[in-house]
Amino acid sequence: VSEAKTAAILGDGGWGTAMALLLAGQGRPVRLWGYDPAYLREMQRTRENPRFLPGYRLPPEVAFEPDMTRALTQASLVIVAIPTKFLRASLQAAPRAVPEGVPVVSLTKGIEPGTLKRPSEILRDCTGCHAVAVLSGPSHAELVAAGQPTTVVVAARDESVAQAVQDALMTPVFRVYRSTDMLGVELGGALKNVIALAAGICTGLGLGDNALAALITRGLAEIARLGVALGARPETFAGLSGMGDLVVTCISAYGRNRAVGLALAEGKSLAEIEAARLTVAEGVTTAGSALALARSAGVEMPIVEQVVAVLAGEKDPRAAVTELMTREGKAE
Amino acid sequence: VSEAKTAAILGDGGWGTAMALLLAGQGRPVRLWGYDPAYLREMQRTRENPRFLPGYRLPPEVAFEPDMTRALTQASLVIVAIPTKFLRASLQAAPRAVPEGVPVVSLTKGIEPGTLKRPSEILRDCTGCHAVAVLSGPSHAELVAAGQPTTVVVAARDESVAQAVQDALMTPVFRVYRSTDMLGVELGGALKNVIALAAGICTGLGLGDNALAALITRGLAEIARLGVALGARPETFAGLSGMGDLVVTCISAYGRNRAVGLALAEGKSLAEIEAARLTVAEGVTTAGSALALARSAGVEMPIVEQVVAVLAGEKDPRAAVTELMTREGKAE
Repeated sequence: VSEAKTAAILGDGGWGTAMALLLAGQGRPVRLWGYDPAYLREMQRTRENPRFLPGYRLPPEVAFEPDMTRALTQASLVIVAIPTKFLRASLQAAPRAVPEGVPVVSLTKGIEPGTLKRPSEILRDCTGCHAVAVLSGPSHAELVAAGQPTTVVVAARDESVAQAVQDALMTPVFRVYRSTDMLGVELGGALKNVIALAAGICTGLGLGDNALAALITRGLAEIARLGVALGARPETFAGLSGMGDLVVTCISAYGRNRAVGLALAEGKSLAEIEAARLTVAEGVTTAGSALALARSAGVEMPIVEQVVAVLAGEKDPRAAVTELMTREGKAE
Repeated sequence: VSEAKTAAILGDGGWGTAMALLLAGQGRPVRLWGYDPAYLREMQRTRENPRFLPGYRLPPEVAFEPDMTRALTQASLVIVAIPTKFLRASLQAAPRAVPEGVPVVSLTKGIEPGTLKRPSEILRDCTGCHAVAVLSGPSHAELVAAGQPTTVVVAARDESVAQAVQDALMTPVFRVYRSTDMLGVELGGALKNVIALAAGICTGLGLGDNALAALITRGLAEIARLGVALGARPETFAGLSGMGDLVVTCISAYGRNRAVGLALAEGKSLAEIEAARLTVAEGVTTAGSALALARSAGVEMPIVEQVVAVLAGEKDPRAAVTELMTREGKAE
């Protein structure tokens, strides 16, 4: 195994760890960085990620590195899977540490509150790196770790960057497609988490699959409306990173945002729900950012609006869903 | 209750019966026609449809009529929910019996083998009626009968026909949108059953939700490709009768076509599966018709092609899915 093939993965959540397994499975050395040195030592000792991806043995190719600069040194591929709200602060620990020309792949799905920047923009700001790519698509980490067939899209402004990432990650069961619509791929990944909160509410209220399918359909329509207004390509939203990721996030038992929606439907408050969770449900923060983006672009996002009101405790989940179902809109 | 408001429903399967409940719930007299007089008598006696929609009491507004011409006489709305393969032959029992100008709404989802005609075209051929509309969208009959929120699309060439049907069917929990893209609405409804067979196979093989979501996404892409080549509007496939109906059919436990796919994945032959079913899984016949349409239009439909091969017993379900997953197609 050549040291030159070392990949750095920033973020030791479920998705970062699943990517570590994927790369290690190809015989590639991986340095996994996480913010908590004690937890990294625990993973090193147990060869498992018990909190975020239990049940998968981490092979010897995976090393644990609490120092981000050291994790990045001489890496030939960088993967970033840090939640949006910690992304900028985390990266400031290692300014300009990404080696020149090395692709940096964002798995982070969100929109930064206040700046309304996407993770790829934060990565460019903080690393100075221009070979930034984003990876998205229907890809629950647990299923990728289990080796179940998964297809994703990698988008970069420069197609040669997308190509390099595709070559690095593709396996017979992890299929990687290329795109140059970074904006569309990234927005689809971020915004689907907000619709998944609504899907969890819908399911939690026992409204049935007809209503769920209608919600998913209307959800994609409003995601695409915003995306196109901001300059993304409409066809991206019909693809794996749009419709595909939205569908899996809204139906799968693994979805964190859907799980938060289920709890909201039970009448729990957001504060109670978040206090009981170890993982970050990105949709909670993204909802407000999405609404701000929509307003600045002059686009209507009725589902996102209702989700924001429910999260703020300003509206009862059932009233919110009823309002969505009874909106006027007689021609489709 | 005015006799002038009588609706005729042709077809006493689950969907026809759910529509009878919906209309009866608005106080409208309904004549329900079915091909088997003995079964109609059984429903009349038990006030239930035990084979196709068990557990729902049929109210006194619903009458059972074995004579199609009598069922249609003086009806002010006609709803047709007869499986495609019986549609033409059934309608020949009552030529020109639809009263002049009365809207005829097709709930049938399929493509006739040989002629490759859509149900609305068969209806026009057989009834001479021009006020034909089609109704489609995510609407499992069981959930409509249970009063769960459902949204559908009604399409007609003449918008005033769609409007009349919308006015007749809309309730607070059954939302009806209008469209003039009959072709797109009808093709989405028919073709989604073929993709649902593939979804059942995928789920039955235990391939997981990432693969299922990718399949649904690629499935909609090939449905839209064919539809647009035949003259439908692309946006119809992103709507309730396209994406919405596809999603519910591929994920819901109520889906008949999905159930056939699950059985195929267990290694059962189509003949064994059909012998054990009371209901018609439309996708089985539609698959071959869809492939014929695709070939005549010069459109690639790789998922439909694999489904046809599996149904014919020419290909193992696992081999078919593997072939789909490993197809080349590096840019999305």
